[in-house]
Amino acid sequence: MQTWIRFRRPDGHIGHGRLDGADGSRVIEYDNDGFNNPSPTGAVFERSALALLAPCEPGKVVALWNNFHALARKLEKPVPTHPLFLIKPASSLAGPGDAVLRPKSYDGKIVYEGELGIVIGKKARNVSVAEAASHIFGYTVVNDVTAAELISADPNFPQWTRAKGFDTFGCVGPAIVTGFNWKAASVVTRLDGVERQNYALSDMIFSPEEQVSRISQDLTLMPGDVIAVGTSLGVGSMKDGAVVEVIIEGIGSLVNHVRG
Amino acid sequence: MQTWIRFRRPDGHIGHGRLDGADGSRVIEYDNDGFNNPSPTGAVFERSALALLAPCEPGKVVALWNNFHALARKLEKPVPTHPLFLIKPASSLAGPGDAVLRPKSYDGKIVYEGELGIVIGKKARNVSVAEAASHIFGYTVVNDVTAAELISADPNFPQWTRAKGFDTFGCVGPAIVTGFNWKAASVVTRLDGVERQNYALSDMIFSPEEQVSRISQDLTLMPGDVIAVGTSLGVGSMKDGAVVEVIIEGIGSLVNHVRG
Repeated sequence: MQTWIRFRRPDGHIGHGRLDGADGSRVIEYDNDGFNNPSPTGAVFERSALALLAPCEPGKVVALWNNFHALARKLEKPVPTHPLFLIKPASSLAGPGDAVLRPKSYDGKIVYEGELGIVIGKKARNVSVAEAASHIFGYTVVNDVTAAELISADPNFPQWTRAKGFDTFGCVGPAIVTGFNWKAASVVTRLDGVERQNYALSDMIFSPEEQVSRISQDLTLMPGDVIAVGTSLGVGSMKDGAVVEVIIEGIGSLVNHVRG
Repeated sequence: MQTWIRFRRPDGHIGHGRLDGADGSRVIEYDNDGFNNPSPTGAVFERSALALLAPCEPGKVVALWNNFHALARKLEKPVPTHPLFLIKPASSLAGPGDAVLRPKSYDGKIVYEGELGIVIGKKARNVSVAEAASHIFGYTVVNDVTAAELISADPNFPQWTRAKGFDTFGCVGPAIVTGFNWKAASVVTRLDGVERQNYALSDMIFSPEEQVSRISQDLTLMPGDVIAVGTSLGVGSMKDGAVVEVIIEGIGSLVNHVRG
């Protein structure tokens, strides 16, 4: 297991690095993303001296709907036969600590969706389930922010892409952890300090390997792309000013706030 | 008006260039996209010696639904109050002459949708309608290929993104024309030589400037991004082996074929 971060250095430059030391307080800098043949630069930083950025720069975020048994039961929807997804564009990316900006055109509910994120390490096209693991670099935390009332605002065209695609609606971080045992992990979401989501990732319908394989039959996944594996019970609304924290133990805590 | 292309040179390198000469048969090579501060390399080619590629490399293709009055009337749908869109990922891009590949998982109808494409030249975020023109580099031709039967295959989640997001389903080309007068132009689509679409772009609901302005309120548009402005009447199915040609006089003819 390695923990990779992307950060702004004290001198303002953007760097990549791997946590080191018993408590992960040291950062060994590399010249590239962990999945991109990185070499150490020779620099070492205290983690506390660095401003964290989203840990990768996805060309696209593939976001799944209805991928947890408990949520499917609550919504009274059948388990899908193929991953159901939309695309959040690269322009929606936000990192740890970043504000989620309320769109000027929208005064409805903005909801958090705490999720596990799969980070692709190697180009994936038509890969089998057995091959998929070697295309996954690691796992991160995602808040798949959604302008919930937009989805059905037009009765003729569900606006999943627009509702989830606004700038700053794709919160990713704080780190990417390789070899992470997602089966034993849970997603916890706290809104202004109060726990709102706490669900086991083992309840997932399509596993990460199945997702990578199935989606790669449809569209090519590139290094740095993220798959947001879907959320489960407890999605709720964030008021302007709210602080939302999505935690996956072993990866970290992704904190963002809503700016009206 | 300038006509910009991207191409593979006889030596295998990828180049950018501008058509020159009374008949556009000469290509003046530049070191970058037309919207990216290009300088001439000094090389000049015969156009016939070059293999055309998609004329830009969009990070995303924003594809509109229901943006022509005639189609809205036929579908008996009201005119939308905001552009209705989804995102086709960069991985869906195909260029002139490329095959549209039938997904292995899908044996249903694959349809053509001949469209005008807007090519963004300058980063656009929260731009007004008046400012929008300065963010448009030019116009191209798009075939917004769609696995039509997938859209409603799951009764609980319309799969617009998947149906339109497959690799090779975003055909763009053959060129980008600056200062193009779209108001006087028509889109013509021919399937195996038979005309199937012929509609005036002046029937558009949201103009290109309105689209760029409205969409830039939602998500940041980057140089090279394409907006597929939506199609009108005459969409139809392409059999494996079919040759489809989308023509906008003044821009060019985009020819692709379906490979089963």
